[in-house]
Amino acid sequence: MTEVRIEGVGTMNEESGEDRVVGRHVYANLYDVDRETLANEELLRNSVIKAAELANMTLVEIKSWTFGGKKGGVSVIAIVEESHIALHTWVEYNYATVDIYTCGDKGDPWKAFDYLLNVLKPRKYKVGYADRSSL
Amino acid sequence: MTEVRIEGVGTMNEESGEDRVVGRHVYANLYDVDRETLANEELLRNSVIKAAELANMTLVEIKSWTFGGKKGGVSVIAIVEESHIALHTWVEYNYATVDIYTCGDKGDPWKAFDYLLNVLKPRKYKVGYADRSSL
Repeated sequence: MTEVRIEGVGTMNEESGEDRVVGRHVYANLYDVDRETLANEELLRNSVIKAAELANMTLVEIKSWTFGGKKGGVSVIAIVEESHIALHTWVEYNYATVDIYTCGDKGDPWKAFDYLLNVLKPRKYKVGYADRSSL
Repeated sequence: MTEVRIEGVGTMNEESGEDRVVGRHVYANLYDVDRETLANEELLRNSVIKAAELANMTLVEIKSWTFGGKKGGVSVIAIVEESHIALHTWVEYNYATVDIYTCGDKGDPWKAFDYLLNVLKPRKYKVGYADRSSL
């Protein structure tokens, strides 16, 4: 697996009970993923639920869809309190993207990311980080 | 309104019927937004629907929630075909974040972004761009 870590935007903050919103957003493009995995809605849905758990996110609702056609694939969206996980796949392009956006001191998006990476096993990926905190 | 355009990741591509997935993701932190706007779930939900329309996105489902507590606010998620719009607000912090991720030649996330900016009217914001295309 080749990792290309693209430039992050913002920095991780040490949090010591600060009175502000702390948001962390990990987003990645996953290339060269096996098609069986990308088409398996149930596997992907369950994996997003597990990823949310590992990242200490409080799940509010999970939704998933399978889209047909040449650019078809699966979308899974987990709504967690005031943030989300979004996974989209394109089966014929062996391609997927993932967004893990956690909110608050207790959430760790990297734990969810590592888990999903292990499920999807891309041969190459790019990952970025954005600070979504209030001022 | 002060704009701080944070460094984008990737570049916009000229698309001429390329056989790949073209994904464009605009994400922004909106500071100093009026509380009445941030707490108005119906307004925000309708605005996300309108933004999806303006960006030429095909809406599959729209979901919204109001969260209580000190860090409470509204979340709106629009699932569009193989991509999404996510808006989260934190009323007491006068804060919101928006993610507009379009897929394919016809979607333009900046049109949706400009529309939502005009609804939320932050006194300051940061915006980033990520290329979510396949190789």
